Amino acid sequence: MIGIFDSGIGGLTVVRALTDRLPGRDIIYFGDTARTPYGNKSPETIIRYALEDTEFLLNKGAKLIVMACNTASSVATEHIIEKFHVPVFEVITPAVLLSIETSGKHRIGVIGTRATINSGVYEKKIMSMKPEAKVWSVPCPLLVPLVEEGWLEKPETAMIVKKYLLPLKVRQIDTLILGCTHYPILKKTIQRKIGMQVNIIDSSLSVAEKVKTFLTQHPETDELLSKAGTSEFFVSDVTGQFRKTAKILLGKNISLTHVK
Amino acid sequence: MIGIFDSGIGGLTVVRALTDRLPGRDIIYFGDTARTPYGNKSPETIIRYALEDTEFLLNKGAKLIVMACNTASSVATEHIIEKFHVPVFEVITPAVLLSIETSGKHRIGVIGTRATINSGVYEKKIMSMKPEAKVWSVPCPLLVPLVEEGWLEKPETAMIVKKYLLPLKVRQIDTLILGCTHYPILKKTIQRKIGMQVNIIDSSLSVAEKVKTFLTQHPETDELLSKAGTSEFFVSDVTGQFRKTAKILLGKNISLTHVK
Repeated sequence: MIGIFDSGIGGLTVVRALTDRLPGRDIIYFGDTARTPYGNKSPETIIRYALEDTEFLLNKGAKLIVMACNTASSVATEHIIEKFHVPVFEVITPAVLLSIETSGKHRIGVIGTRATINSGVYEKKIMSMKPEAKVWSVPCPLLVPLVEEGWLEKPETAMIVKKYLLPLKVRQIDTLILGCTHYPILKKTIQRKIGMQVNIIDSSLSVAEKVKTFLTQHPETDELLSKAGTSEFFVSDVTGQFRKTAKILLGKNISLTHVK
Repeated sequence: MIGIFDSGIGGLTVVRALTDRLPGRDIIYFGDTARTPYGNKSPETIIRYALEDTEFLLNKGAKLIVMACNTASSVATEHIIEKFHVPVFEVITPAVLLSIETSGKHRIGVIGTRATINSGVYEKKIMSMKPEAKVWSVPCPLLVPLVEEGWLEKPETAMIVKKYLLPLKVRQIDTLILGCTHYPILKKTIQRKIGMQVNIIDSSLSVAEKVKTFLTQHPETDELLSKAGTSEFFVSDVTGQFRKTAKILLGKNISLTHVK
């Protein structure tokens, strides 16, 4: 099984991208809805949560872990790799690689939660691979609650997106990394507000491509994955809102199992 | 000591109201910032958290508990009273009593988190005391993140407040209960959008009055409270944002102790 976790619902964008690219592989998802969101919490707390989430998935039989949460990826990746001996994928590096490959002017914008942006992980990775790049980052802490509320088409959401993106727009970026798995859900609004000429990098697609390439190169790992085509969804808290947003994201009703 | 808890920072409005009315009493505060917010979680999870928060404060020496969180008050009060044998104050009943006393037409609006509004506790309490009252409730889940972000004067916040209040405005309410301890921070905007003729009931002030009255009537409990005039603040996660918002709310820097 492929184990995927997120602080809540955003990681379902990664589930969709993975099942599109790797049909048949069994998926187990954990959304830590009892402690969501992670993005405005401290690195210490986020690391503790990410280790617990990974342990849960491994105990359920996952053979490969996808951290479908940029906040956890930005501060907890090394801790997870060090503690557990399975392939671990985070959502940051694949997006960084794709942004460097596809950007012409290497004027790159990054948006994410406060914890992700404060970690500086995107700048560090981009600069280490492409020292002449220019990177500007903006924390957008209100976008996660707006998505979780389903306020996707409201004028207030468009205004808030515009306000957040203004500092990137004036810098004339040519590439924008969506550094949070919730943001693809607002991709249309973001594209409109940043300008149609800007290339948007969706980390949920990038990590799914990365996992697919890895499994092609490592058939011995792919063989470990069960392939009945099942998806299991576990959450630490069950709310009506999660079901509603999950339906928007995955295009179908899912059955949720509550774990503590 | 008076023990006060909230899911995060909103309860500091109650701390301010209590220290104004009961100067000298020692206060111990717990903000569950590692699991905030409570308002979009399920009753089962909120009850578990509220019991843990209360236990923490009692272990630290609190002799009286104030639930400075409408979400916890709306679903967990009976569970706390049943489990612990100390005076427990919730923020709902005092606001309901004041709204009934002061409302002329008894057309009452209530705003709160999704969990608080879904619980139906305000309608039930108001109708049991004043069966001829008309009550309309609206969940306002985006107001807590807007307050926590410090977006108090932004036009987007005013637009969102206006949108949430519209169904109450068309009902021509004469009284509006702020059913969340975060909302007093947006009181000016709320007053402007609902109309100056509407009487706003601030649950943080109501509960502080209630505690003061109780201690006057129960000097034996007041004697148990230490009176060195100290305030201690414990949080389950330390973030810069908490300090910043705490300073806005309390008008001073506070020292925070991190507990797990």
